[in-house]
Amino acid sequence: MLKFEILKEDRSTKARRGIIYTAHGTVETPAFMPVATHGSVKAMTPIEIENLGFEIIVVNAYHLYLRPGYGSVEKLGGLHKFTSWNHSILTDSGGYQVLSLSKVRKIKEEGILFRSHLDGSEHFLTPEMSIEIQKGLGADIMMCLDECPPYPSTYEYMSNSVELTRSWASICKEEKGDSDNALFGIVQGGVFSELRRKSALELLEIGFDGYAIGGLGIGESKEETFETVAFSLSFLPEDKPRYLMGLGLPEDIVEAVSMGVDLFDCVLPTRNARNGTLFTSHGKMVIKNAQYAEDKTPVDEDCECYTCRNFSRAYLRHLYQAGEILASRLLTFHNLHYYGRLMKEIRGSISGGEFSSFRTQFQSTGGLDKN
Amino acid sequence: MLKFEILKEDRSTKARRGIIYTAHGTVETPAFMPVATHGSVKAMTPIEIENLGFEIIVVNAYHLYLRPGYGSVEKLGGLHKFTSWNHSILTDSGGYQVLSLSKVRKIKEEGILFRSHLDGSEHFLTPEMSIEIQKGLGADIMMCLDECPPYPSTYEYMSNSVELTRSWASICKEEKGDSDNALFGIVQGGVFSELRRKSALELLEIGFDGYAIGGLGIGESKEETFETVAFSLSFLPEDKPRYLMGLGLPEDIVEAVSMGVDLFDCVLPTRNARNGTLFTSHGKMVIKNAQYAEDKTPVDEDCECYTCRNFSRAYLRHLYQAGEILASRLLTFHNLHYYGRLMKEIRGSISGGEFSSFRTQFQSTGGLDKN
Repeated sequence: MLKFEILKEDRSTKARRGIIYTAHGTVETPAFMPVATHGSVKAMTPIEIENLGFEIIVVNAYHLYLRPGYGSVEKLGGLHKFTSWNHSILTDSGGYQVLSLSKVRKIKEEGILFRSHLDGSEHFLTPEMSIEIQKGLGADIMMCLDECPPYPSTYEYMSNSVELTRSWASICKEEKGDSDNALFGIVQGGVFSELRRKSALELLEIGFDGYAIGGLGIGESKEETFETVAFSLSFLPEDKPRYLMGLGLPEDIVEAVSMGVDLFDCVLPTRNARNGTLFTSHGKMVIKNAQYAEDKTPVDEDCECYTCRNFSRAYLRHLYQAGEILASRLLTFHNLHYYGRLMKEIRGSISGGEFSSFRTQFQSTGGLDKN
Repeated sequence: MLKFEILKEDRSTKARRGIIYTAHGTVETPAFMPVATHGSVKAMTPIEIENLGFEIIVVNAYHLYLRPGYGSVEKLGGLHKFTSWNHSILTDSGGYQVLSLSKVRKIKEEGILFRSHLDGSEHFLTPEMSIEIQKGLGADIMMCLDECPPYPSTYEYMSNSVELTRSWASICKEEKGDSDNALFGIVQGGVFSELRRKSALELLEIGFDGYAIGGLGIGESKEETFETVAFSLSFLPEDKPRYLMGLGLPEDIVEAVSMGVDLFDCVLPTRNARNGTLFTSHGKMVIKNAQYAEDKTPVDEDCECYTCRNFSRAYLRHLYQAGEILASRLLTFHNLHYYGRLMKEIRGSISGGEFSSFRTQFQSTGGLDKN
């Protein structure tokens, strides 16, 4: 089951403010979904994620399929029970990970032949299996198995790929049957507008609970990215949630929201944190830089997060240099707090009819400038 | 400044219940001090350590001397401000780490010549410097620089070493002057009772705020350990805190408390956690074992910690296998909760005049059996 309600549409952009209802609660949109690759948002507890204001996380079906196995997760009561996360969960199909992580693979009409990146064991992932896995995991929102070709790909390759993705989407829809798990289709087609149009229209014909735009942020220029996002969105129905997969720089989120995107996921806030890069009111900060060695001030004076309220740049730099787990914790906490604030301010500005001025201000300052 | 008050003495053992007052608050004894090697109890925030009931932590002067440098920590307002830990801090002298971590070294009458384990740079650590560093860090309790020879060592080597440790202790005492930072002497002498006696009596003559027993738990038998502890304690004054360095298996703590030890530190609860080994009511548990792959139950049914209230053995095993930081966090939290409970029950049982029966029960069940 999935219901989507639009609460407010921005006058001067295509931004919209909505609510997604799933079996595990509501998701206020536009929303950012932290990535919990193996069923844990790296370095964070579920209660922390909840307290930071997130209502939905993304879990990787590929990783859990290989370890601990979706059968095990199912026996243990599904992902929500397993991870102790009681809000909504979106699972990806596994397609992207199979193509990016596994070494040996072959894409056939029936599915993808690949070797596990963990132990080299051979697996054949079909659209039917992908849905079976995601159902077993107990996803609130499942994603169709798709092919995400590298950038650049030829028109011919991409054209065949879009056809394959359509065919798999159709099988996924059938396999979903009347289950309660919602299912999103994924628009592919690279940077070829003709193929994006074809992909979008074909998915619409099959009919899904929501639509994602995939295959971007993999090497194409920013201009190409956003042309493709805007073009793809133009074919997608207003009354269904729209999810831009994998793209998540703060400025990208603001831009895509203005085009009408409702959902985002990205490893940036968590991965950057573990690499010592922070998002602040004044732009990015690389905490390991020597200039912070004796800096008593917090990462961001305008931030009210636990990290900024309690620790200096000098201490965080020291923890990072010493390889302390606490560095990953505190930096991740800060970055996710930043993303939580960002989405809250985006939603607030749409509700208040001030999204355009928020966007202008955000673009000119390079960050959030109030708490 | 340091004040020690004994609240209650056990009738049938030498266990005692007390309070240490430092410039940063009270420490109810017997107390366990979590180890914050680089100024952070691994994987934990200061507020978590506080909420688990700990009132004092141990920080390694050697590590902070090398990185970020004690001068930096001093400029940043001292360890308490730097780490955001507002309760008591004990710093070790650096002697043990110099001898165990640095590759090239030479022990001279004036100090220890060593190369940093980080960058190979050469340093000469003297007792004067050790106190200067610990003062700079702002320790509530400083430790004398000592030599901790390996096990086994010859009587002759140990005899010279005890003489060196005495000479350094004397310099440390002088260097402390009338500063507010308390200073503990360290009884050495290996497993040679004659040398332990000599070491203890010489330190007493110099006079310290408290006394530690060092050089144990490095390869000698348990029998030797506890014979040496009991023998060394017999020379130490009743009215000063006694600290058994580095030994911290739960059963060792209970045993040493019965002999009159007040303070403990050990990396076991935190290090074991990161290696997947847990302390429970029923003894140790190795979470990575295959038997827990589909085990829905918590680590310890009798434990009320966040980990046990929210997560199954299966999920913790999965996180551990996947190398997730959350595994280190949740397992460390559980182990420290266990140690927090252990010390609380020890203190409660001494106060209630029931330490002997607590000890008997603990020894027969191999763990705490009520929450």
